[in-house]
Amino acid sequence: MKSIPRIVFVLSLGVLATSMASAAEPIQPVRPVQDVNLAQVELGKKLYFDPRLSRSGFISCNSCHNLSVGGTDNLKTSIGHNWQQGPINAPTVLNSSLNVAQFWDGRARDLKEQAGGPIENPKEMAFSHTLTIDVLQSIPEYAIEFKQVFGVDEITIDEVTQAIAEFERTLVTPNSRFDRWLLGEKDAITSEELAGYELFKTSGCAACHNGEAVGGTSFQKMGIVEPYQTNNPVEGRIAVTGKDADRFTFKVPTLRNVELTYPYFHDGEAETLTEAVDIMGRLQLGRKYTPEENARIVAFLKTLTGEQPTFQLPILPPSREDTPRPRPFD
Amino acid sequence: MKSIPRIVFVLSLGVLATSMASAAEPIQPVRPVQDVNLAQVELGKKLYFDPRLSRSGFISCNSCHNLSVGGTDNLKTSIGHNWQQGPINAPTVLNSSLNVAQFWDGRARDLKEQAGGPIENPKEMAFSHTLTIDVLQSIPEYAIEFKQVFGVDEITIDEVTQAIAEFERTLVTPNSRFDRWLLGEKDAITSEELAGYELFKTSGCAACHNGEAVGGTSFQKMGIVEPYQTNNPVEGRIAVTGKDADRFTFKVPTLRNVELTYPYFHDGEAETLTEAVDIMGRLQLGRKYTPEENARIVAFLKTLTGEQPTFQLPILPPSREDTPRPRPFD
Repeated sequence: MKSIPRIVFVLSLGVLATSMASAAEPIQPVRPVQDVNLAQVELGKKLYFDPRLSRSGFISCNSCHNLSVGGTDNLKTSIGHNWQQGPINAPTVLNSSLNVAQFWDGRARDLKEQAGGPIENPKEMAFSHTLTIDVLQSIPEYAIEFKQVFGVDEITIDEVTQAIAEFERTLVTPNSRFDRWLLGEKDAITSEELAGYELFKTSGCAACHNGEAVGGTSFQKMGIVEPYQTNNPVEGRIAVTGKDADRFTFKVPTLRNVELTYPYFHDGEAETLTEAVDIMGRLQLGRKYTPEENARIVAFLKTLTGEQPTFQLPILPPSREDTPRPRPFD
Repeated sequence: MKSIPRIVFVLSLGVLATSMASAAEPIQPVRPVQDVNLAQVELGKKLYFDPRLSRSGFISCNSCHNLSVGGTDNLKTSIGHNWQQGPINAPTVLNSSLNVAQFWDGRARDLKEQAGGPIENPKEMAFSHTLTIDVLQSIPEYAIEFKQVFGVDEITIDEVTQAIAEFERTLVTPNSRFDRWLLGEKDAITSEELAGYELFKTSGCAACHNGEAVGGTSFQKMGIVEPYQTNNPVEGRIAVTGKDADRFTFKVPTLRNVELTYPYFHDGEAETLTEAVDIMGRLQLGRKYTPEENARIVAFLKTLTGEQPTFQLPILPPSREDTPRPRPFD
């Protein structure tokens, strides 16, 4: 029996060392989702996949934040109602609950506030909150589920966006190889990937790309050392604050699952990680990475791909005779 | 021990009676899927959900044959590349393996032949088979999976459509309430629904809507007793056979899951089952159903909704630097 306290002591030290190492790093592991309202999640999942939240009956949240391909659409800028070209690259919904605010310019405080935006944006789903409610209320299965989940007889947009946001809170991607390394599994990443991480830290990337989401915690100017050249007219956070200092300032995007969320930047003009790392190095840090350095950082970035959310494709309740019909072509 | 043979005899009689009753009906229960190549199914499921099979990178098979809403898009006619309006109502993919041929005019012999059509249709996915192969071959996870599943180093459209078709073969919907009734569960449908079924048979609907899919087994003229009035210019099977007798002749659609697959007819002009039953009665059978009769048939039709295929939303492998990029706007 004499050795047991010693084993416990050694184990405790090990855990302590790991958690200290992790705490000392600018990046923290993605925590598995906790404390969700599961009934809201299940309802929100249906709404997320329901194209009847759009005027055309063709576009759902999942159209541009496609959970089969990293929670985005892999297009420079998105396709909206009537094939309109969106102004900005669709940010991934994965780990978006970890963002300080939503949209590139942070104009929505949280996921709930965000969720109402695309529904009534004439360039996106081109619907209205009123019509959304009319559709949902006319479908008995939805009406009953809203009553069960929220206790309401009359659905409002408040419950709709709350349910979607609660589903989106579950879309975190823990257990990437990098997180396993952070948590103490020392051979979870290669020496090349580790060298890429060291360079990521020492050359300044982690000044903005840090925390659990490796980004998403601050707004930063695009083009600090050198101006960013783009034909995209979007000016970023100035649209929210009105402050000239916020011109070309954008929310720092998460680098979680960045291997999946191409193309990059608010205008989607960087097609590859190699290109994105090169531009970021030059424009933000005044540093021209060698091809070897660039490849090393890219190798590190690919270790940030986590477990993708998996779930059954939701089956949606059918419209009824009095459900407002989609109007795709008028 | 004496009573056992008698019980066996009674049970056998019961089974016999049930199977005879079922055999005597014009509709047979949907059989659960058997003998599939599971590796092809899993690969085909990914392809079915992959928007990179379209020129825009936005449209997948699931866009218009959406498995969340009955394997169709619930639009009169579909939205294709560049928001083009399709010529005809998207038929459901559910139970489509039971059809005598594919497309409304039967121009594809089977699901494999069908699957290649929309990819290169300029009004649908607007891509090409060559570019599809270029995309898939450039993605190592796909290249490896095609090699595992088909033993090929070079992917061709043949394996692509074979895998999609094999996945689609799994999209049957057994165990509807009506099928449970056919199989002997006498209280699986109500007396009103049963009366609707009797009227469905006695007034002639089952002459065309029969078999396992309650349709899909023959081509019939739309407008036998009275001509069908429509602005839709599609002329049906004459496009395949060139025979004048096949003008306005279409494949009889399945009525399985018809509650989910609104709107109805090849032009999608019937918004509700009530309307569809009324028009079919008048134009095909020369019979004006009373509102009560109509409601009875509709009640029966809703018992044909089966178990919807459920599976995990597939996660797709990311494009690589040399993967051809989507071109949504040029």
